[in-house]
Amino acid sequence: MVHAFIKKGSFQDSVSLMLISRKLSESPDVEEISVMMGTPANKSLLEATGFWHPQFSEATPNDICVAIKADSADSHITAQISESLEAALKAIAQGQQGGERLLKARSWRMARQKLPEANMALISIAGEYAAGLADQALEDGCNVMMFSDNVSVEQEVALKTKARSKGLIVMGPDCGTASIAGAPLAFANVAPQGTIGIIGASGTGIQELMSQITLAGQGISHAIGLGGRDLTAEVGGISAISALRMLAADPQSRVLAFVSKPPAAEVRQRVIAEMKTLGKPVVALFLGTRAAKQQEDNITFAATLDEAARLAAMLAHVQQMAAEQPAVCGSKICGLYAGGTLAAECAMLLGEQLGLEGDSKHHQGSMLNADGHHIIDMGDDFYTQGKPHPMIDPSTRNQEIARLAQQPQVGVLLLDVVIGYGAQEDPAGSLVNEVKRLREKRGEAHPLAVIATVTGTEQDPQQRSKQITTLSEAGIAVMNSLPEAVQLACQLIAPPLLGVSEPVPAMLAGVAVINAGLRSFADDLQTNDISVVHYQWAPVAGGNQRLANILKKLK
Amino acid sequence: MVHAFIKKGSFQDSVSLMLISRKLSESPDVEEISVMMGTPANKSLLEATGFWHPQFSEATPNDICVAIKADSADSHITAQISESLEAALKAIAQGQQGGERLLKARSWRMARQKLPEANMALISIAGEYAAGLADQALEDGCNVMMFSDNVSVEQEVALKTKARSKGLIVMGPDCGTASIAGAPLAFANVAPQGTIGIIGASGTGIQELMSQITLAGQGISHAIGLGGRDLTAEVGGISAISALRMLAADPQSRVLAFVSKPPAAEVRQRVIAEMKTLGKPVVALFLGTRAAKQQEDNITFAATLDEAARLAAMLAHVQQMAAEQPAVCGSKICGLYAGGTLAAECAMLLGEQLGLEGDSKHHQGSMLNADGHHIIDMGDDFYTQGKPHPMIDPSTRNQEIARLAQQPQVGVLLLDVVIGYGAQEDPAGSLVNEVKRLREKRGEAHPLAVIATVTGTEQDPQQRSKQITTLSEAGIAVMNSLPEAVQLACQLIAPPLLGVSEPVPAMLAGVAVINAGLRSFADDLQTNDISVVHYQWAPVAGGNQRLANILKKLK
Repeated sequence: MVHAFIKKGSFQDSVSLMLISRKLSESPDVEEISVMMGTPANKSLLEATGFWHPQFSEATPNDICVAIKADSADSHITAQISESLEAALKAIAQGQQGGERLLKARSWRMARQKLPEANMALISIAGEYAAGLADQALEDGCNVMMFSDNVSVEQEVALKTKARSKGLIVMGPDCGTASIAGAPLAFANVAPQGTIGIIGASGTGIQELMSQITLAGQGISHAIGLGGRDLTAEVGGISAISALRMLAADPQSRVLAFVSKPPAAEVRQRVIAEMKTLGKPVVALFLGTRAAKQQEDNITFAATLDEAARLAAMLAHVQQMAAEQPAVCGSKICGLYAGGTLAAECAMLLGEQLGLEGDSKHHQGSMLNADGHHIIDMGDDFYTQGKPHPMIDPSTRNQEIARLAQQPQVGVLLLDVVIGYGAQEDPAGSLVNEVKRLREKRGEAHPLAVIATVTGTEQDPQQRSKQITTLSEAGIAVMNSLPEAVQLACQLIAPPLLGVSEPVPAMLAGVAVINAGLRSFADDLQTNDISVVHYQWAPVAGGNQRLANILKKLK
Repeated sequence: MVHAFIKKGSFQDSVSLMLISRKLSESPDVEEISVMMGTPANKSLLEATGFWHPQFSEATPNDICVAIKADSADSHITAQISESLEAALKAIAQGQQGGERLLKARSWRMARQKLPEANMALISIAGEYAAGLADQALEDGCNVMMFSDNVSVEQEVALKTKARSKGLIVMGPDCGTASIAGAPLAFANVAPQGTIGIIGASGTGIQELMSQITLAGQGISHAIGLGGRDLTAEVGGISAISALRMLAADPQSRVLAFVSKPPAAEVRQRVIAEMKTLGKPVVALFLGTRAAKQQEDNITFAATLDEAARLAAMLAHVQQMAAEQPAVCGSKICGLYAGGTLAAECAMLLGEQLGLEGDSKHHQGSMLNADGHHIIDMGDDFYTQGKPHPMIDPSTRNQEIARLAQQPQVGVLLLDVVIGYGAQEDPAGSLVNEVKRLREKRGEAHPLAVIATVTGTEQDPQQRSKQITTLSEAGIAVMNSLPEAVQLACQLIAPPLLGVSEPVPAMLAGVAVINAGLRSFADDLQTNDISVVHYQWAPVAGGNQRLANILKKLK
C-alpha cells in the first residue's frame, strides 16, 4: 500500500531530490519510494505510476511529495521516513554551505544586482517555469542556456526570435551541454583551449566531439548548444544561424564542427548556405545521413562523430601549419614524388579539392597537369632509364626541384620522403640541401612553401623522427598524411577569409552567469573561476501561475 | 665534346654505378658524366641522351661504359677519370668484403648448393635477363620477388602461370616492396609484427600502409607485392589471387589490406569474389576510385592510403579485443545508452552492419528494434519524467541492465559512459557493480560480453583513464569509438571463420633467399638474420644471348 506525506515549503532541485530519494529508499521497510516537488506535471506522474495519495492534491510546487510503497500497513512508517527526510535536507543544506563562497540570490533582480555584468542565464528549473525566466533574462540582455525541457515549441520560437532581435542567443530548451569562453555550462567536458568551434543540436554529440577532438590532440574554442528542436521546420534553425555567425566573427575559432540530427529540408538549405558564407572550414555531421559528396565548398560532411572530430582536428592542424608558412606569392602547386602511388593519390586528392581532372596518359610521369598545377611521379620510366629509382638516387628529383627557381608562379612544393631498407641513407638531408639552394635562388621576393610527408617507421634505419626533424628544421612543413598535405597546399594558395570585420560577440569574450536550478552547475562554474550567482529559484506565489502573473504585473 | 672509355669485364649493379657516377662527377673538368653497363638498352639510352661514342659499339653487358661531357678537348681527361674509376671500384670491392660474412656464389647452381633450403629468389638484375633467371628459380621450387622492370607482359604471364601450377608466387616484375615472415625484400619498412596482412600492386602503397599502420599502433604479418601490372586484363590478377589464398590460410594474418590501382573490370570481379570467400575482414583500396558502398560483406572499401591503414588498424584492434571476450551464446545485441546522440549513432551503425532498419518512431527511446537487437536511448522522456537524466542518476539504466538476467538470447551489451561536469561522480563504478550482479545472475551458462565507450577527457573530474581502468578491470571491453564498439559487437555474434583448414604456405613460415642483383638487398636480409646467399650475377656469355642459349642447352 502507499503511505504519503508532504513537506511544505521546501523547494529542492532534481539532483537533491534524487539524493534524498536514494537515502530514503535504503530504509528496510520501504519497497519503493517517490520523492517529487508538487508541480502539476509531477502530480500527473505520481498518479500514472501508482504513487498517488489523496493528500497530494493540496501540495504546491514548493512542497515535497513523498510516496512510500510498503507491505506494512503500519502508518508509523511515514514518521520514520519523515525523520530521515529532515536529516537528509539538513545534510544537503550543510553540504551547500561548506567551503566555497558561492554568491546566492533569492530573486532574479537580486541576482542581477550581485552580478551586474551577467550576460548568461543558465536555467535548469522545472519546464513549466523555464520559459518565463528565460524571457526575463533576455529582457535584461542575457543570453540563455536552457537545460530545462518540457518547454513548448511556441515558447521556444518566441524566445529565440526575441534573442535574435537583441543580438543574443538561446541555447535550448533541453540543451545539455555548452562551453563558452572556458565556462562549462551544464554537462561539459574539460577540453584543451584550441581553435575548433563546435555547434550542436545534441548534447552528447557535442560531448563526444569534445572528447575525440581532445584525443586527437586538438582543442576547442567554444561549444554552442542549440537544443534538439532548433533545426526543425517550426524553429527554423534560428539559434543555429546565430551560432554560426558568432563563431564566424570569432578569431579564436578557425575551424567549425557542426552536429545535429538531419534538419528539415528547408532548414538544411538555410544552414548550409550560411556555412558557405563563413570563410572558414566547416565539418558538418547530420547524424544518420551519409552525404553523396563529401566536400561542398568549405564544408566537409562526416558520417560519424569520430569522423567529424578527426576531420575537424585535421583541419585545425592544417590551419596551425598554414600559419607557420611563408605568405605564398605563386598560386600554383608542384608535386615531385619518388613514390608512384603517393603521386597518384596526391593527384587524386588535389584534383578533388580544386575540381581538376587528373592526367590519364601519365606522359613522363605526369599524374596531374592542369591549371598550372603539376604532380609528377619521378619514379616513372622516363626518369629511371639507366638510372636508379629516385628513392635510391635523389639526383633526378633534385634537378626538377632546382628548375623551380625559374618558376615563380609555383608557390607550393609537395614532396615525399620514403625511407626504409633499400632507400637512401638520408633522403631528408639531401632534399633539405636542394630546397635551401632553391630558396636562395628564388630570393625573398618569391617565397616557396614546401610540404612533405614521410613514409616509414621509427624502426627504419633512417628513423622516421630524425627525418622529420631534419625537414622541420629547414622550414619544411611535415604533415601526417597525404590528405593533410594536400589540404595544406590548397589552403596556402587560397587562404580562407579569416578577417571577418564584425566585432567579436560579447558572449564569446567571456561569460558571467546567473544560475537558476541545479546548484551543482553553479559550483562547477565557480570551480572554473567563472563569475556566477546562484539564483535560489522557487516557484513564485507557491507555483500558482495566476497569482504569479498578477505579481508580475504589479512589479 | 664527349670523351669515352670502356672498362672491360667488370660487372657492377646499378647502385654501385650510381655511387661511382657521383664520385667521378666531382672532378672539376667534368661537365656531365654517364656510367653504365654496356647492355643493348643502355646503349640506346646513351645514344638518345647524347652520350654516344663509337667505342661503345664494342662494349658487352659486362663492360662499364663511361662517357664524359667536358669543354676541354684535352683527351687526357679520360686517363684521369679512368684512374678515379679504378679507385672507386677498389673502394666498392673493399667495402663489400668488410665485416659481414655474406655467403656468395658465382652461379645459380652454386647458390642453391650453399642454401639448399632457399625458397625465394630476389631478382634485381637488368630486365633483359630477369625473366630467364626467374624461370630457373621457379623450376627449382623458389618463389620469386622480381624487383627488375623491363620484363615483357608475356614473360610475366608465363612466369606467373608456371608459379601458380607449382603452388608458388611471383611478386613483380617491377615489385619494389615485400616483407615475408620478417624478411625485408627490397624496399621495405620495419613494422612491428602484427596481424595485418598486406597485398599490394604498388610499392610505395605498401610502404605507406606499413608506415601508417605502425603509427596507428598495429603491426603486420606479411606484405606481399604483386607488381603494377598484375591486375590488368592481360595478367588477370594471377598473383593477387595466390596472395589472397596464402594469407587466407595464414593464421597470423587476421585482417587483410589490399592496395592497387583500379583493376580491369573482370579482374576486379574475380579479386572481389575471392576476397569474399576468405572468412577474414578485408580493407580494399583501388586507388583513384571512391566506392559507392563502403561495405560489401567482409570487404571495406577505402579511398586513401591513410584511410585504408586506419580501417585495417581498427579491424585488427577489434580482432584483438574479440579474442579477449567470452564466447557468446546469445546472438542478440542490446544497447543501453545514456547519450541520445550516441544511441542514434550506434543504431545507425548497427543497422548498416546487419542490414536492419532503424526504429523511426523512437517509441520509449527505442532507436533500433529489429531481429531481436535493441538499442535504447535511456535519456528519452519516457525514462526521465520526474527523474534526473541517466547521466546523473544511473538507476533507470541499472534496472534495464538487471532485466537482461531474463534475456539469455542477448549475448552482447553495448553501453556508454559519459563523464564531465554535471555527470555522476563515478559512472563506471556504478555500471561495473550492476554488470557484476547481472553476470552472477546469468551464470556461466549464459556469458555476456559487455562493450563500452567513454565520452570525456583526461581533465574531466572523473578522469577518462580512471574510468577506463575501472571498466577494463571488470572485464568490460572499452573501445575508442562507436564504430569500433559496433564492429566488435557484430564480430562477437558472428565471428569470422578463421579456422581455414589449408596448411600454411611454406613461404609464410619463413624465407631463405637467393639474391641476384643489388647486393645491398642481401646485406639488409643478413642484418635481419634471414638466411641469404648473394648470387654475384653477371650476364652469361658476356651478355651474348645466342651464346647464352647454346650454353643453357649444353648444361
